[in-house]
Amino acid sequence: MSTEPGRVEILALAGLPEVRLGDDLPALIGDALEATPGALPLVPGDVLVVTQKVVSKAEGAVVDLRTVEPRPEAVAWAARWERDARAIEVVLREARRIVRMEHGVLITETPQGFVCANGGVDARAARIREALRARLGTDVAVVISDSFGRPWRWGIVDVALGVAGLHPLEDLRGVADADGRVMKTTVRAVADELASAAELALGKTAGRPVALVRGANPPLGEDTIATALMPAETDLFR
Amino acid sequence: MSTEPGRVEILALAGLPEVRLGDDLPALIGDALEATPGALPLVPGDVLVVTQKVVSKAEGAVVDLRTVEPRPEAVAWAARWERDARAIEVVLREARRIVRMEHGVLITETPQGFVCANGGVDARAARIREALRARLGTDVAVVISDSFGRPWRWGIVDVALGVAGLHPLEDLRGVADADGRVMKTTVRAVADELASAAELALGKTAGRPVALVRGANPPLGEDTIATALMPAETDLFR
Repeated sequence: MSTEPGRVEILALAGLPEVRLGDDLPALIGDALEATPGALPLVPGDVLVVTQKVVSKAEGAVVDLRTVEPRPEAVAWAARWERDARAIEVVLREARRIVRMEHGVLITETPQGFVCANGGVDARAARIREALRARLGTDVAVVISDSFGRPWRWGIVDVALGVAGLHPLEDLRGVADADGRVMKTTVRAVADELASAAELALGKTAGRPVALVRGANPPLGEDTIATALMPAETDLFR
Repeated sequence: MSTEPGRVEILALAGLPEVRLGDDLPALIGDALEATPGALPLVPGDVLVVTQKVVSKAEGAVVDLRTVEPRPEAVAWAARWERDARAIEVVLREARRIVRMEHGVLITETPQGFVCANGGVDARAARIREALRARLGTDVAVVISDSFGRPWRWGIVDVALGVAGLHPLEDLRGVADADGRVMKTTVRAVADELASAAELALGKTAGRPVALVRGANPPLGEDTIATALMPAETDLFR
């Protein structure tokens, strides 16, 4: 994998086995990085995109959905966002309190009392990042991704549910574009673009849950996905 | 550039000069493909992502926006979609009739009497595809991309405004996922994911308007972007 300007490479990690409840996912990802030709050494600006599904499997958020009877709100929300109503029902049952449930984002209070978007996905991303730093001695940014429908367009794209080590947005306001024109409104949702790009290498059917994206060089730093979520009161759509 | 499974490469094309009104954009793209190490020969499944901005420049849809006074609808629509109100005003003036103007899609009737989304962008994609087929003797799919805001998330991502030679959606309904579970609702918006992925290599400031995406292998075939646009009457959001 190279790091020339204008060249981005996306590599689905090799050799990730079937992940089960209680598996040490960061360790499995470390093994997979070592098994994937060209992945190591990591370089600054590298991003690991990990699908939410494999995180859920390792953390035991996988239940036999055939036994779950979803409530009507879960059915309606899941239909809109092209999700499984039974899976949404499970998230709702695990929450001590539902703070908001709209627009593809579930904000819940966990049994431990944390209020977080989508069940504390940033914290999971941070755990993977920290374990890989300890093992490899280098920093890597982590995006946890999942598929969502959008209004007015058919089909799902992968977006970022949680981040660690990068800013989900790149603010280009005040920067000149290639024609020298100062951009007034341009804020790139770079974490979402990374999630969508990774999906091109992962696919839905090949059993590839983690991708390394090299060359995109997103803005690095400590941040949370909440930065990218629009509060209801400023959303012109509502 | 390789074509291993699970590996996607995105290469911003080298050497595209400043594009001006009347330039032969397909010829310039052909030259840039030849100037970009590793780009040729094209292989089946390759996709060229071309930003709408460079298409507009070549086709003379570029005017001195400082001289344009946008109407109120253009101001409101542009604010919501993080676009330039003066640019939207120009599109509206060029249209003989506005069929629909909502949700990030302008459907207009051209002076020639064609009713088309976003000014016939599919036709422009097809012209680039045909010119490159004539020059290189190989097929390449083309996506014309532009940036859009989304509801409920800050920041813009690139999406497909027009396509040629690929289906904008990949329908996986009825296909088994990696766990053997038959997917009931999964339709991937692959053209939008290609546009977002290309943006990671192009950026907004580097003067790189065209990227080659290799290894994503989208579903190939004749289609239009209208396939991916949700008709108002089936949109649960309205």
